[in-house]
Formats: sequence, structure tokens, C-alpha cells
Amino acid sequence: MSDAKLQSVLSSLSQVHRQLNSLPSNAAADDECIKLNTNENPFALPAPVLESAVAALERQYLYPEDDNVSLRDAAAASYNLSRDQVIAGNGSSELLSLIYKAFLDPGDTLAMLSPGFAYNHKLALLQGARLLEIRWGETCLLPIRKLLFGPAKEAKFILLANPNNPTGTFVPIADIESLVAQSDRLIVVDEAYVDFAPDSALRLVDRYPNLLLLRTFSKSYAAAGIRIGFGLGHPEVIGRLRNIQNMFNMNVIGHAVGVSILAHQTAYAENHRHIQYERVRVNFALSQLGFSVTPSHTNFLLVRVPAGRDGAWWQTCLKRKKILVAVLPDEGLEDCIRVSIGTKPQMDAFLAAVEDILGSETSQRSAV
Amino acid sequence: MSDAKLQSVLSSLSQVHRQLNSLPSNAAADDECIKLNTNENPFALPAPVLESAVAALERQYLYPEDDNVSLRDAAAASYNLSRDQVIAGNGSSELLSLIYKAFLDPGDTLAMLSPGFAYNHKLALLQGARLLEIRWGETCLLPIRKLLFGPAKEAKFILLANPNNPTGTFVPIADIESLVAQSDRLIVVDEAYVDFAPDSALRLVDRYPNLLLLRTFSKSYAAAGIRIGFGLGHPEVIGRLRNIQNMFNMNVIGHAVGVSILAHQTAYAENHRHIQYERVRVNFALSQLGFSVTPSHTNFLLVRVPAGRDGAWWQTCLKRKKILVAVLPDEGLEDCIRVSIGTKPQMDAFLAAVEDILGSETSQRSAV
Repeated sequence: MSDAKLQSVLSSLSQVHRQLNSLPSNAAADDECIKLNTNENPFALPAPVLESAVAALERQYLYPEDDNVSLRDAAAASYNLSRDQVIAGNGSSELLSLIYKAFLDPGDTLAMLSPGFAYNHKLALLQGARLLEIRWGETCLLPIRKLLFGPAKEAKFILLANPNNPTGTFVPIADIESLVAQSDRLIVVDEAYVDFAPDSALRLVDRYPNLLLLRTFSKSYAAAGIRIGFGLGHPEVIGRLRNIQNMFNMNVIGHAVGVSILAHQTAYAENHRHIQYERVRVNFALSQLGFSVTPSHTNFLLVRVPAGRDGAWWQTCLKRKKILVAVLPDEGLEDCIRVSIGTKPQMDAFLAAVEDILGSETSQRSAV
Repeated sequence: MSDAKLQSVLSSLSQVHRQLNSLPSNAAADDECIKLNTNENPFALPAPVLESAVAALERQYLYPEDDNVSLRDAAAASYNLSRDQVIAGNGSSELLSLIYKAFLDPGDTLAMLSPGFAYNHKLALLQGARLLEIRWGETCLLPIRKLLFGPAKEAKFILLANPNNPTGTFVPIADIESLVAQSDRLIVVDEAYVDFAPDSALRLVDRYPNLLLLRTFSKSYAAAGIRIGFGLGHPEVIGRLRNIQNMFNMNVIGHAVGVSILAHQTAYAENHRHIQYERVRVNFALSQLGFSVTPSHTNFLLVRVPAGRDGAWWQTCLKRKKILVAVLPDEGLEDCIRVSIGTKPQMDAFLAAVEDILGSETSQRSAV
């Protein structure tokens, strides 16, 4: 193969994305490990949902329904909205990516409450946009004045998650409403973890054209592998996103599982109770062991480790014991790990591993 | 909801995509109809492929493997390439969309052999790019001199399908090689229908850095509803596309079915034989009835209808009889319909409907 020809061909193509060549890829999963690093919900689908997925495999040869009409209808009925207030995505990650592409030109600014979802840094880079990070207020309150009158005023849109990842904290919907009502920017609120929280901003969608909610079935509906997400907002905003969406963005299994989950939400009550119970149990156990845990409204815990070691050290120690947890790239969270809430046996194994590691630390220090 | 607020919010967002608001959506499918309009392959998955899909439903709660590594490995092994020469897509339509985004700036030109895949007009509009249509030569030969020395010289890339949609025609791989060898442009060859054709350009991928092949499992592997496609090319070209791809672009079912199809390609031999046999049979029957059929190397037929009526008239008559066929937006194809090759009962029903329509035409004309 001629190198000169390669260079000539490559140099003829648009160069705008070259800067991305060095972006790292996520690490592969390991079947032998207990996965507490990406906030999945490790339970089977309810029986009728699973049956609908198997039934959909019989229509595998047909193209999926265009524009996800049936799934959007089902979501609209469930959320008391109209079809044109709903866009369905191959996970909410696809929808986030569409928001960047639809609403930002190269050089534009968006604002994100920080610490937040790290993937936004990649999306901003891809779009050639500037990501302005606005720190959450003290004890993770919404810094409304800063968002209304600070540099975020120049942002094309403001992005926040409620409950927030990676802190697990939740701000009252009255605060969200106060921001949305006063701001003339589009406010994108990612409610990925809303089913573990006390309230939702859903009732605001009909009242404020500048609110765009994101939902996913990856966390509370145990369907991360199927890729189902929703955007809920004003028809004009939703319409612009649908216009630029790839055709056939979801497959027939995504459609079937999505519609069936919406019809069987109550079948997840036990799942959600379990996670809320384990969240309290693990929080208490870790606190007893000297960790400081942020009260969580999600299916994960942000855990500050005891002084002397940082989050990366704990992540490595736990990985040796085949337990995966996340560390965070955010300033001020170097001493933290993020631990997903799994099954009871998984959380027992996690707590036993933590005690083991603490035990060998203590004996090593005694030895020194 | 305040209209003034809506207008203020919308006007604050990037406007580049507003021109798309009027793009039409595809029509919804109708369960009662025989679908011969989008070239699906109406057979079940082979048993082991179906089993792998059901098994994957047990891993539905985990995020799909990042960057589609196992699927890319399986495709690389099957196509005798390396992993970094392969990108996996949520259908080849996702990959086509990535090619536009990665390689075109607004205002750039791409060239497409015409008549071709109409979806490219939408993709060009989305990217703000100019789609230059170059007509296929006489009897659908590759117009190599026009592509090398004509206005296509300014194109960032040249797009063609072989076999071509909607003509069903096939150009010898030696002609593709001649173009790729002499051109300093990226040549994107969509081989969606290659399994129904006598040859493939796969052996050229290792030799020419400016060749990018697209494959799909929607046509010959009966998996349009699952969304599985591949791009095969030089690692630098593939790498740029992977860099801008959404994370988790395929779900766990797409991964499982893709890997399993690659392992069971021989199980499709009977399927492909059936389609090739029906293609000949329907071609012959239509010719006897006064239609002019382009010899096809795909799973569809481009059919010129008898003088006096156009393709749209035939489409409407057939739709009344619950049979869907496609008409083409291309200049010169107004008198054509495109008919997918389905099961024997489906094609029998199609031929019977055609004879019926011809019969009532004749009796109506006699009456006048």
C-alpha cells in the first residue's frame, strides 16, 4: 500500500476531527468481575418484557418502524404528553449527541453543572464547542443566580442532571422550575436516575418551552444493553432533534422492550425497593468503616475514602479482588470512588473486600 | 406556555438545521400488506443465530461492549482483515451518516453515481454539503473518465453502490479497481447487495487506502430489524469514523446476532439460492406480460411498466391489492417500479395481482 497515496487521500478529507484521534476508549468489561462501575441494574427483565423481546425476534427481517412512532406513542401516554413532545433514542447518549449537533455551531458555548457526566467533554470536542463548567453550589444546591447572570448567560444551552451523577444528589423541583422560568436558555435536565429519587420535573414539560428532559431505561429498568432513551420537551425543540436523527436509530428489540417496559413499570417496584434498601445498608456499613458517603438519590454511592489513600488506590485494590468501581476525573473528587448498587450478594462481596483491604492496611501500618 | 418565550429560546439556538423541517418521513408499514418495497429478506434467522439472540437477552442489563470489539474481531476474521480495518454500525445507514460527518465540512462537495440511494440527499442536506450526481454510463457501466477528470475531481469522496440500488446492476470489480487505483479521492463502495452478486471488492481493501467498503446484514442475512452494518477500509480512515461514533451505538442483541451470523454464513445458502431462483422466475413472468426488467444482481427487480401508465399508477393499483412496491424519485425512472424478491407465495401473489390489473386495464380499454 502506498504511503504517499494514503497521505494524499487523508489530506483531501475534512480535518476538523483530527484532534480527536487521541481520545481514549473505555475499558472492556470482564466477565469474572463484579461490575459496580457503570451504574447498571443487575436484574433480569420482568417476564412479560422478556417475552415481548423474544416475540420481536420474529420480525427481525423487517426494518424497524420509522421515527419510533409506536414507542413514542407509548411514552407519551405514560408521561401524559403528546407524541410530538417525545423523541426516542438509542439510549439517552444518542439524544445527548443530537442535542449538541442540532443546537451548537463550532465555537459556540454550552454550560454544564459540574461535577457532571464526563462524556460531555467528548461531545463538546466533537462539535468544536466550548464546555463551560459551572460548579454546583454548597451541598450541591442549584446556583441559580450564577446560571442566570454569570458567564452561563452566553451558553446556547445549560445541562444538568437531577439526581446528579457522580454525586447522587438531588435538587428540589421548585429550584429547577425557578431556573427554567427565569432563564431564556434551553435547560436540559438529565433524569437518568429519577426513579430512585423523590420527585421529577416531568410536570414542568408542558409549562416551559425551554425545558428538555432526558430519560433512560438503562438505570432503573435494567435495560442498559438494549439502549432505550427519551427526550421530552416542546414539539419545536423535539422536532429539530428528530429532523437530524439517523433513520432506523433503534432496532426492533429496542422498540419491543421499550413499549413493554412502559406497560409494566409496576413490575419494577421490588427492584427499586431493593436498590433503595441496599443503598441505605451499604451507606451505613461504609460509614461504620470510616468512609464518608454522600446521601444518594440514585443507584450508586459517592464514597470519600479514609485519609491516606486516594480513590485510584482503592479502585486498584478492589480490582485485584475482581470488583470494579469508578473513579472520577473531577477536581475535588480525587479521594472518592463511585460504587453502583448491585444485588445483595454483590454488595456483601464489596463490603467484605473493603474490610479485607482495610485490615491489611492496618496490619501493614502496625508492621511499619 | 408563552409564545414569546418559545421564540426567544428557539432563536437563541443554532439555526443551521431549520431548512430540514419540511423533510418528509417514510410511510409506516402495514401488517396486512405484502412488503416488496424496501428489499428486506423475509425469512427467519437460522436456529443457532436466533438462539444467540435469545441468550443475549440475559445480558440485557449490562452496557454493550464498547467500540464493538468482539463483533469487529469476528468480521475481521471472516473478511481476512485486521480489527482496525473494521467499524461496526447500527446498520450501514449509521456508517454512511458518520462518513458525511467525518469527511465533509459545510459547503464541501461529494459525488454520487446516479441513480443511487436517495437517502444521500438528506445526509448531504444535514451536513450542508453539495451532492453532485454523476450519471452511470450506458447500460450502467462505471463512467471512470468522468469520475477522474470531470467535476467529481472536486468531491471529497465518491459514493457508489455495487450492485447498484435501484437498478440492480453490477460492474466488474476490475472497473472498481481501475477507478480506485487512478483516483486520489476516497471511493466509498456500498456492497449492501453483494451476496446476490458474482464478485466483491473485498480483496481490494488491503491494497488501496482510498477504498471504503460498506456491508449490511439487512438484505442477505435477514436482519434489517436488528441493524448491523460494517465499514471495511484503511485503519486511518476507519479510525476517524470510530472517533466520532456515538458510544454504545449497537445493542447487545445486535452484537450477538452479528457475531452469530458471521459464524453461520453457510446457513444462508438456501435463502440466497431461493432469492436467485425467484428473481429469474419473476423476471421471466413479467417479461411475458409486457414489462421490461433490468437483469438484477440483487434481491429486487427494476421493472419498467408497459406504456400508457407510470410507476406511481402501478404502485397505487398494487397497494389496493395489499402489495407494496417502490417508485423511484430519479429522472428517467418515472415509468418504473422496484420490486423486492420475497417468498414464493409472496411473489405468486404479486404476479397474480399484476395479471389482474392488466386484465382490468384490457377490459376497460375494450369497453372504451
